[in-house]
Amino acid sequence: MPNKSKPTGILVSFEGSEGSGKSTQIARLAQRLQQLGREVVATREPGGTEIGEQIRNIIVHNSKGDEMCAETELLLFTAARAQVVREVIAPALLRGAVVLSDRYLDSSTVYQGIARNLAPDPVNQINRFAVGNVMPDMTIVIDVPTEVSLARIRQRASDLPDRMERENIEFYKKVREGYLLLAQQWPERVVVIDGTQSPDVIEQEIWAGVQERLGLARA
Amino acid sequence: MPNKSKPTGILVSFEGSEGSGKSTQIARLAQRLQQLGREVVATREPGGTEIGEQIRNIIVHNSKGDEMCAETELLLFTAARAQVVREVIAPALLRGAVVLSDRYLDSSTVYQGIARNLAPDPVNQINRFAVGNVMPDMTIVIDVPTEVSLARIRQRASDLPDRMERENIEFYKKVREGYLLLAQQWPERVVVIDGTQSPDVIEQEIWAGVQERLGLARA
Repeated sequence: MPNKSKPTGILVSFEGSEGSGKSTQIARLAQRLQQLGREVVATREPGGTEIGEQIRNIIVHNSKGDEMCAETELLLFTAARAQVVREVIAPALLRGAVVLSDRYLDSSTVYQGIARNLAPDPVNQINRFAVGNVMPDMTIVIDVPTEVSLARIRQRASDLPDRMERENIEFYKKVREGYLLLAQQWPERVVVIDGTQSPDVIEQEIWAGVQERLGLARA
Repeated sequence: MPNKSKPTGILVSFEGSEGSGKSTQIARLAQRLQQLGREVVATREPGGTEIGEQIRNIIVHNSKGDEMCAETELLLFTAARAQVVREVIAPALLRGAVVLSDRYLDSSTVYQGIARNLAPDPVNQINRFAVGNVMPDMTIVIDVPTEVSLARIRQRASDLPDRMERENIEFYKKVREGYLLLAQQWPERVVVIDGTQSPDVIEQEIWAGVQERLGLARA
């Protein structure tokens, strides 16, 4: 019997290296949720708002990207995040929607903190300042070996690889290890899915995890 | 007798409301310092680097400026600051230059903290993260009554006033009071100059203050 009470908003963040297949899985999960009658809001970082997309342009397409310091990168990512939280995510949660975010605050912890060696305390403080009290209810890390994600990135890079994809293999190894570390630290929030499986199997595992943890009923 | 030892880099920040006459006074102080044989680097916030100018564009010319939340604004200003500190200011100080910055971290304390009511602790933490250990040796606040600065802003606004200049009078009153409060808190660093005086008198007072506090000798 459908649950007739007002649905509660839920925030699910997707994390993982470039080339891990997040976009595909977000689209599939969105479709399943919509079939249940839930409102789904999909957003991405950096971006998701007009201001955030402008920030994304600075980060991704900066022609002299190598000169951007790690501190600036962190502050730009968190600026885009602060905007999308207040302009999109928080209002959607209030309406009872399920928000699927392609990256969220764990990306800063892992990319700028662990992989670029910024000290964890300020990274955490700035992350918390940016999101306020809007923490993910569930975080899905799609894990693939570094070599696999790099091969996928190169395959799809039609023209010049952008700034984030020019990093070396050591950087992406730190990213992968960073996510696995986060999953150990926050087992009640973070689920790791083996991203070397077929998209269909990944989709089913994500759906099972979402059902188990969030028990999403028909709206 | 000229001091023949290697000159020490010095950072002087200029603060105050829009329309307080900072740009004029920075140019005049730069000229005096150059006549002493000092290398002078003038920079402005937000901006001062290629990345910073891109950030400035987002902040200043955002067509839907009213939608930018205070948290995003703070993070964007501090992102531009983190970049200019590492790309321009710190290397210049290492060379022994005098750096004159049109706005620096006090602007965030006052505009986003005091005037937009963000909590002081995160504002201070984020400010410190952005500047690292590069604190101003001296900060010159050019103080003018709010009505005077607003009248000057309106007079010079040839086309649409930009985002920062559309604020209401209450906002600018808080800004002014914020700067005066900072001067009380940091008397050894912050000097308040009466900006209703003539540019020549202001120039002389700034020069006297710089000599007294920093004792700049011929390089």
